[in-house]
Amino acid sequence: MSVTVVGSVALDTVETPWGRNEEGLGGAATFFSLAAANYTTVHLVGVVGADFPKQHIELLQKKSINLDGLERAAGKTFRWSGRYHDDVNMRDTLDTQLNVFEQFHPKLPADARKSKYLFLGNIHPALQLEVLDQAEPAFVALDTMNLWINIQLEELKKVLARVDAIIINDSEVRDLTGHRNLVKGAAAVRALGPRVVVIKKGEHGCLLFHEGEFFSAPALPLENVVDPTGAGDTFAGGFMGYLSQQDATDFSTLKRAVVHGSVVASFTCEKFGPDRLMEIGPGDIRTRYEQFERLSAF
Amino acid sequence: MSVTVVGSVALDTVETPWGRNEEGLGGAATFFSLAAANYTTVHLVGVVGADFPKQHIELLQKKSINLDGLERAAGKTFRWSGRYHDDVNMRDTLDTQLNVFEQFHPKLPADARKSKYLFLGNIHPALQLEVLDQAEPAFVALDTMNLWINIQLEELKKVLARVDAIIINDSEVRDLTGHRNLVKGAAAVRALGPRVVVIKKGEHGCLLFHEGEFFSAPALPLENVVDPTGAGDTFAGGFMGYLSQQDATDFSTLKRAVVHGSVVASFTCEKFGPDRLMEIGPGDIRTRYEQFERLSAF
Repeated sequence: MSVTVVGSVALDTVETPWGRNEEGLGGAATFFSLAAANYTTVHLVGVVGADFPKQHIELLQKKSINLDGLERAAGKTFRWSGRYHDDVNMRDTLDTQLNVFEQFHPKLPADARKSKYLFLGNIHPALQLEVLDQAEPAFVALDTMNLWINIQLEELKKVLARVDAIIINDSEVRDLTGHRNLVKGAAAVRALGPRVVVIKKGEHGCLLFHEGEFFSAPALPLENVVDPTGAGDTFAGGFMGYLSQQDATDFSTLKRAVVHGSVVASFTCEKFGPDRLMEIGPGDIRTRYEQFERLSAF
Repeated sequence: MSVTVVGSVALDTVETPWGRNEEGLGGAATFFSLAAANYTTVHLVGVVGADFPKQHIELLQKKSINLDGLERAAGKTFRWSGRYHDDVNMRDTLDTQLNVFEQFHPKLPADARKSKYLFLGNIHPALQLEVLDQAEPAFVALDTMNLWINIQLEELKKVLARVDAIIINDSEVRDLTGHRNLVKGAAAVRALGPRVVVIKKGEHGCLLFHEGEFFSAPALPLENVVDPTGAGDTFAGGFMGYLSQQDATDFSTLKRAVVHGSVVASFTCEKFGPDRLMEIGPGDIRTRYEQFERLSAF
């Protein structure tokens, strides 16, 4: 089994009260891939500029991520820079430079088109539609953001009508549906298309809604959060990676997939960028999964 | 087994977007007692004024709550009034009239002194100390609020040094310890005395910290929250009621107690004041407990 992800590969500059990470490896597709690679074969589709450091490519290759779909375009790599405060749930975006991403149109290589599982990272809904036109996966999940909800709602609704799952945070549910109540919000999101709705609540864990059933997954209470950048993308990677590994999307598998997403996301926060993700392997994931079992069993 | 609770009995006027409840039965000790009475014998210690309606007394008696410690003083009953908004996590206190509560000094009748389990409701820390001087329970839990943390910290610390458990919400942990991170905050609270720290996070459930172990209990995602007044006190009642019923305070029992607290609190929110609590019995609690099991099992 394999999973294909389409999304950003970036150079991130992150400031936190505990330090600064200058032009580190970042981007939604990067974090997704590094997480999912623990479970399944990953095809990454995205674009970088001529300035993208060779050691970052090597790092992705080291995790056996298939980069046939990673274009190298003339120009500069997408850059994002942000600052976190004492309350790591709050961050300011200091700068976003789309660069090569501005002209990007995803092209899925033959193997990437064959993946049974597809993740549409947080990119313009029109690009997400272009991806859907190139493949016929068995299970598609989508990420989006407030920007597209606010300025591209009609396009986004076309995408929503064609996906199986959405992974979304609580404030985005409110923006998309007008409901503060997440039970009502999830029902309204499901009415737009996806049969599976995963709502991320940051340090409060996440909720999974699926055909009248729901599941609440805790977040691991962490004593030291160094850098939460990429935690959400890592969550999606663990979630989709596990579904692909198991090749199943029933409620019981979806629940365990949500916990695997939470497990890998908890690692991401422990060091800057993907540093912690580069260190972990199946044994670490298994140990922390058991910690999540103990955390919520009664 | 039995549990004794000391706290307010009040007349609450509550406005929500869905209606208004004028001078309804309220107060922390009331909600606590109605919840705990599902599990164990409850001794309520508090005070009401001459104007306290007879039907409220009858209602408490109907749930077999022992009212030997409920003084009836000359003057008016404690009154609280508040307004909830569309986001029911936000409320404004419109008015607080202490009335007979202003001169209140708790006096525990003989049977109330003998309870092995004692809950100190959210009253002035000096009164909480007076209660502790009258009894020698095996297990004492404490509630408090930002007001006492801000203006009576030294008295409060004396209380904390003498209790086994504290039930506190996340913002109070920050006020009391300065830590936004709840793992650090819980450790700082434990350093002040209580070996058990329960942190309520409203719609996000709660965390239990106990000797280096922790547990995360989900909240039931509710579609319709009519009135959350008393949910926190009900939580404490379910928690202490279950501990008293089981007569145990090991980690495993504490975890189930936290879930029982969440179960009864979820009922409270479904109608105004204690209306929903008056309807439920052991069968309803068992059914919803099983719902919580399904909600968090994976």
